[in-house]
Amino acid sequence: MSTRLAPPARQGMTLAEVDTPALLLDLDAFERNLDRLDQSLVDTRIRVRPHAKSHKCPEIALRQMARGAIGVCCQKVSEAEAMVEGGVMNVLVSNEVVGPSKLARLAGLAKRARVSVCVDNEQNIGDLDNAARVAGTKIDVLIEVNVGANRCGVEPGEPCVPLAQRIAATKHLRFAGLHAYQGAAQHARTPIERRAAIARAVQLVQTTIEALQAHGLKPEIITGAGTGTYPLEAASGVYNEIQPGSYIFMDADYNRNLGDDGKPVRNFEQSLYVWATVMSHATAERAVVDAGLKALSVDSGMPLVADLPGVEFLKASDEHGVLKVRQGSRLTVGDKIRLVPGHCDPTVNLYDWIVGVRGDKVESVWPVTARGAFY
Amino acid sequence: MSTRLAPPARQGMTLAEVDTPALLLDLDAFERNLDRLDQSLVDTRIRVRPHAKSHKCPEIALRQMARGAIGVCCQKVSEAEAMVEGGVMNVLVSNEVVGPSKLARLAGLAKRARVSVCVDNEQNIGDLDNAARVAGTKIDVLIEVNVGANRCGVEPGEPCVPLAQRIAATKHLRFAGLHAYQGAAQHARTPIERRAAIARAVQLVQTTIEALQAHGLKPEIITGAGTGTYPLEAASGVYNEIQPGSYIFMDADYNRNLGDDGKPVRNFEQSLYVWATVMSHATAERAVVDAGLKALSVDSGMPLVADLPGVEFLKASDEHGVLKVRQGSRLTVGDKIRLVPGHCDPTVNLYDWIVGVRGDKVESVWPVTARGAFY
Repeated sequence: MSTRLAPPARQGMTLAEVDTPALLLDLDAFERNLDRLDQSLVDTRIRVRPHAKSHKCPEIALRQMARGAIGVCCQKVSEAEAMVEGGVMNVLVSNEVVGPSKLARLAGLAKRARVSVCVDNEQNIGDLDNAARVAGTKIDVLIEVNVGANRCGVEPGEPCVPLAQRIAATKHLRFAGLHAYQGAAQHARTPIERRAAIARAVQLVQTTIEALQAHGLKPEIITGAGTGTYPLEAASGVYNEIQPGSYIFMDADYNRNLGDDGKPVRNFEQSLYVWATVMSHATAERAVVDAGLKALSVDSGMPLVADLPGVEFLKASDEHGVLKVRQGSRLTVGDKIRLVPGHCDPTVNLYDWIVGVRGDKVESVWPVTARGAFY
Repeated sequence: MSTRLAPPARQGMTLAEVDTPALLLDLDAFERNLDRLDQSLVDTRIRVRPHAKSHKCPEIALRQMARGAIGVCCQKVSEAEAMVEGGVMNVLVSNEVVGPSKLARLAGLAKRARVSVCVDNEQNIGDLDNAARVAGTKIDVLIEVNVGANRCGVEPGEPCVPLAQRIAATKHLRFAGLHAYQGAAQHARTPIERRAAIARAVQLVQTTIEALQAHGLKPEIITGAGTGTYPLEAASGVYNEIQPGSYIFMDADYNRNLGDDGKPVRNFEQSLYVWATVMSHATAERAVVDAGLKALSVDSGMPLVADLPGVEFLKASDEHGVLKVRQGSRLTVGDKIRLVPGHCDPTVNLYDWIVGVRGDKVESVWPVTARGAFY
């Protein structure tokens, strides 16, 4: 078994000493983000189940649970295994799990921790029941409903009824509720768009609940919502669980969401940065940092350069980030700079370690134990 | 120290049994690609130094060397360390190395293996000399020249002279030649564009050689070229070393390069695939696979669906790939399919293992030991 690379930092180092590229977490901003989620829900009775696909790091999950989260969401069985291994004993796999080996592992995990999972296919329910039977366990199952994301999930209303009946008829599964995540709404830029999308999702969930109730089926858990829209789901009176993930970190793409005042929403702070070194500055207008496509996911656009007005991250190749430098910039080869990732989740997945920084000092170096856990 | 995830396959398994997402290497196609590079250079005396940033896997590097490669290129010191650790004893770091800890490691590595490195900055030459002095070693140094990629590298001609003089004046460095990689030309779509770009690069290298010779400096090694253009550099009479990387794998983006007949160039075969499972097919026109942004780099576009005409990979989210399915497709939940990555290098960097498949059988499971090696 190969081991991970050595971490880029040690506790007590100064920030300047941290090797690059490194994933930095501004611990003060991170902790304020944890507080802000709490505060924003103080008048509700909503349960918080943050999404661990954002951080893949049990150290962070445990801190979320210390603030009242009931557990975490994961997208993959191996991600859930890493969380349970790290002491997080309540995991919803907010996704379909397909194939005998994954189902066997999921059922095995359900013997060690509280585990629930989503379905949108009848055959899959039978396979899941069988895996739970073989493992000698019982698994909570939610039906994934397509409330507008057009990804996984059965259509709302009547199409959910036969699936719920099928679950209720099994011996080793328990029908627990609905998974209704409107992923497409999270990055809708204007509050009007986000409100319309979530109003529609709430209506579709309501229709589904009524269809199920007409058949004597009661979905207890209604779960969904992300960082972009969770206050809407929390206030809906229909959802009783939310799954925000990115709120702890934020990214350049989320920072482009606008509020009612037409200005970027700033309910959470940027806490996640990629730490990079200027490795070339051979012409006045161009500098190059040592962080490219393998250190930054560019699916939602290029990263932003923090702290340095007038310096723009122009393009990324595999291991290089090309900066456009305005005249008068004082960057020199060897300088280290902070970049705001375009999209936090797939960027975190590139790193084995999260370097927690308080002020100028490295306070923690946490392993991203579920990095690459996509099985 | 955390360990990597367990591999998705074991030797002797059938392909159908391989867990997903997995990175598959069609070993027959891979070996034909190795042969084809050899054959295409049979009439030249060009040295081949394949780029290990594509595969990050010593098992592959050793197979390249068994076919006559003189060593490999790496982009990072940690990547070079992984190669030397894996038995590859001749490494060019085809990139600038900046900062005391990286320079110390590079110099340390130069005591164990033949190591060369690029520079484009005078201060960096002094730092490198100092690191070599402290380690008690001597390092070969190439000047990186900007021949059109507009990334790292000093401008061609006269600006190279003071750097070469500086290197020649040190005690612990040896001026070895020029690194002149025209990265921007590799994916130029038409042969006219590629020929024009490389003709210009060759001219700029020639100008630089003449400027150096006028000062009594002789660059022995002229290295550059990638999969898209290497026959041009090989035939230039100026370059004497080439650095193709992607030729062993290919990807959807390289497969869009056109030849003189206006058809896609097919000098190398697609050998690299992402193996994915259909995890949802809740509506007739939409299926979802378990491979998204964390299993496929989409910087050069979406992956292509192999083997299944009429099925299109529409969009990727973190852990989902949404397929548009034409009427009449027979995909069902649980089916496994092959995807052609949009861009091979950053996709390989997402995986801890390369699963080598011959026909229907898993023949090898190689660790990607330099995955995440971006320090």
